[in-house]
Amino acid sequence: MIKNILVLGAGRSSAVLIKYLIDNCEACNWHLTIADAAPENVRTNFPESNLVRITAFDASDVLQREKEISNANLVISLLPPQLHFPVAVDCIKYSKHFLTASYLTPEIAELDQQARQKGILMLNECGLDPGIDHMSAMEIINRLHNAGCTILSFKSYTGGLVAPESNDNPWGYKFSWNPRNVILAGQGTARYINGSVYKYIPYSRVFTDIETINVDGTGTFDGYANRDSLAYRHHYKLENVPTLLRGTLRHSGFCRAWDIFVKLGLTDDSFVIEKSEELTYAQIVRSFLPSSLKHRELIDAVAYLCDLPVEGEAMSKFIWTGILEEEKSGLKNATPAMILQHLLMSKWKLEPGDKDMVVMQHLFMYMNKDGVEKNLVSSLVVKGENQQYTAMAKTVGLPLAIVAKLLLQEKINIVGVHLPVIKEIYEPVLEELKTEGISFTEIN
Amino acid sequence: MIKNILVLGAGRSSAVLIKYLIDNCEACNWHLTIADAAPENVRTNFPESNLVRITAFDASDVLQREKEISNANLVISLLPPQLHFPVAVDCIKYSKHFLTASYLTPEIAELDQQARQKGILMLNECGLDPGIDHMSAMEIINRLHNAGCTILSFKSYTGGLVAPESNDNPWGYKFSWNPRNVILAGQGTARYINGSVYKYIPYSRVFTDIETINVDGTGTFDGYANRDSLAYRHHYKLENVPTLLRGTLRHSGFCRAWDIFVKLGLTDDSFVIEKSEELTYAQIVRSFLPSSLKHRELIDAVAYLCDLPVEGEAMSKFIWTGILEEEKSGLKNATPAMILQHLLMSKWKLEPGDKDMVVMQHLFMYMNKDGVEKNLVSSLVVKGENQQYTAMAKTVGLPLAIVAKLLLQEKINIVGVHLPVIKEIYEPVLEELKTEGISFTEIN
Repeated sequence: MIKNILVLGAGRSSAVLIKYLIDNCEACNWHLTIADAAPENVRTNFPESNLVRITAFDASDVLQREKEISNANLVISLLPPQLHFPVAVDCIKYSKHFLTASYLTPEIAELDQQARQKGILMLNECGLDPGIDHMSAMEIINRLHNAGCTILSFKSYTGGLVAPESNDNPWGYKFSWNPRNVILAGQGTARYINGSVYKYIPYSRVFTDIETINVDGTGTFDGYANRDSLAYRHHYKLENVPTLLRGTLRHSGFCRAWDIFVKLGLTDDSFVIEKSEELTYAQIVRSFLPSSLKHRELIDAVAYLCDLPVEGEAMSKFIWTGILEEEKSGLKNATPAMILQHLLMSKWKLEPGDKDMVVMQHLFMYMNKDGVEKNLVSSLVVKGENQQYTAMAKTVGLPLAIVAKLLLQEKINIVGVHLPVIKEIYEPVLEELKTEGISFTEIN
Repeated sequence: MIKNILVLGAGRSSAVLIKYLIDNCEACNWHLTIADAAPENVRTNFPESNLVRITAFDASDVLQREKEISNANLVISLLPPQLHFPVAVDCIKYSKHFLTASYLTPEIAELDQQARQKGILMLNECGLDPGIDHMSAMEIINRLHNAGCTILSFKSYTGGLVAPESNDNPWGYKFSWNPRNVILAGQGTARYINGSVYKYIPYSRVFTDIETINVDGTGTFDGYANRDSLAYRHHYKLENVPTLLRGTLRHSGFCRAWDIFVKLGLTDDSFVIEKSEELTYAQIVRSFLPSSLKHRELIDAVAYLCDLPVEGEAMSKFIWTGILEEEKSGLKNATPAMILQHLLMSKWKLEPGDKDMVVMQHLFMYMNKDGVEKNLVSSLVVKGENQQYTAMAKTVGLPLAIVAKLLLQEKINIVGVHLPVIKEIYEPVLEELKTEGISFTEIN
């Protein structure tokens, strides 16, 4: 019997997902519909066929949304997060499986009972981070628990970075993911638990309260805390773990330099800069400096404010961005964050031949059944092939694609609203990811 | 003809307003209705009579709200800011004057045309700050402009403080105004203009980018920038002024010490502390310290984080609050800001015999018609009588009361949505305020 898969949204990072689905259409007896606001962009990368339809899609068009969803057996939503909920509601209405890489929201969590009644799976956080991190962590957690171990500490870091061979800038960073999220990262207070003490880090300290993470053969990284680690104690069945932290990796030195933007106030997205289109980057930086520093050279003033040496590494990264240049962004009614994003998109651009790199590391401390304390470090390094088949696109797209296949093959038979922390899901997905070159190295 | 005045909300700082209106009821032929959620509290301070009615009031009860408003000639709203708009809409519907001390909101500004058509005045920002600051500033600005002067710089600071004779704590501060607003003060980015350069101060620097303000005979104060000074260029007819700053005054040294709370993250109101009711203040402070400082004594760790001497003035203010004590707030599901407010309300309490103090200072630099640069400093110091007839209640309540009287006497004949920056309003109000002991001292 033919099964219809509907992919909503085919933007950045969708290429590997779509390729996997297309490659399996014939063997699996699938028809694939790719619905995107800009179908012509999708068509330049993927040919239409009797099995693959590419269609224009407006998420706010209720009739079209319902029609496409009602014709599908399974919906994968890569839409912006705020558009998932109406899709999820339609999936309930028409009894269709719903998969996404986005964070589970309270409103989707409330659909659990209805999803169970309709016999459908609504799987959230099934990309890279969140996604592969949950699956790989849960595999280790269950393994340790089954061996009678007690987990004392679990820290998990993930970063979407540029591969060393394509790194030609002092930050060791290029955008392989939504640039806006990178600019706004860390806003709000980070929450985790450390040695049974709840820990809270205000935004002003997120990029200085960092840890150093070593990944054998790949390098040394800064790890900063993600917004809310505490909620995952429940998902990971680690309700009483003394230490749990989820964080983000950046190349060593990135955070100290990024903190200059934070200290200045240039990551603020809450207000519009007066006459933003008329001002140069340097003038905007000047606007964020205390009036008391107005007689200093701009570079000196920034270094003084941030208590950094003018000639040091952090300041040189900062200067490299061009933020002290007498050049205009030209953006009207722009917030500081919009100006900064505009500048960095030109500097941290993944060029056609560039390879990105995804790095993940889980650090466990546990007590084995004999009462001996042990460490376990599990690391993943994935490199992209090019600007389109990125490591990010692989690691975000393949888990979704594999779950879609397993669901339609009825090899996964779970209903309700879930994260991929269930053995029946993560085990076959991690197994197939290995065959795609996405495998962890474990040091015990 | 009898005129009906409706006062909505009679909480903190309403006593002087209500007393003024009651004192004038007979002579002016007014009937006064005081409508409050807790009318019994109002009745303990003010007797009802054939001229004064005190009634229970629920702002969300549409029928009651419309009934009271339709029976009034003039409405003074002291309700929480978010409740003004429906009241304003009813005032339009029934053609009633509307007065408030709260900030003008965009949605109320949009009622201007309708207010003009209905022939009513909707006057906003007519308390102390905003209020008396606007009126007194505008009087000077118009005077200087009329004398052919060009204003080069205008900075205006206001503080609600404790009077020196009632000051028995190292902060020189007790709550004479909404405590929550004091805890959350400065959040968001402060915006002003300095030497024709737009200036933005992120929250993390609001309490360190401060100025020192001297008020002759009263003392030295810290002045920190208020949220948005730029909007007032238009209201003050100072569109092209090179420097304009509105700020808040605190006793000298307050800001440096307050910044410790900010740095720690204890003023955050955006998330709930886990198990907040079980934790002591000291444990909560520990939660906001970097894990790297976990082996230090708590006091040392805070001082180290803030780069302050342990024995210094700022740290001693901080310690005085009791925030490092092993005592529980007992508050469930509390944000850091709620915990801090709870603690400080017990420490910064205006006791029955205590006097508060309002301090305001306008600092002008201008060029006179002969091209000579001049300074003008205008200062106001008002002390309260006791815990109820506070300087805050006088300076917030009297401008509203006086405008109400002048309107009902038809001595003010302005219609539309306004701030009290119009001569026809501020001139008689400032004149009468002098007779109440609220007068500025000018040094030229």
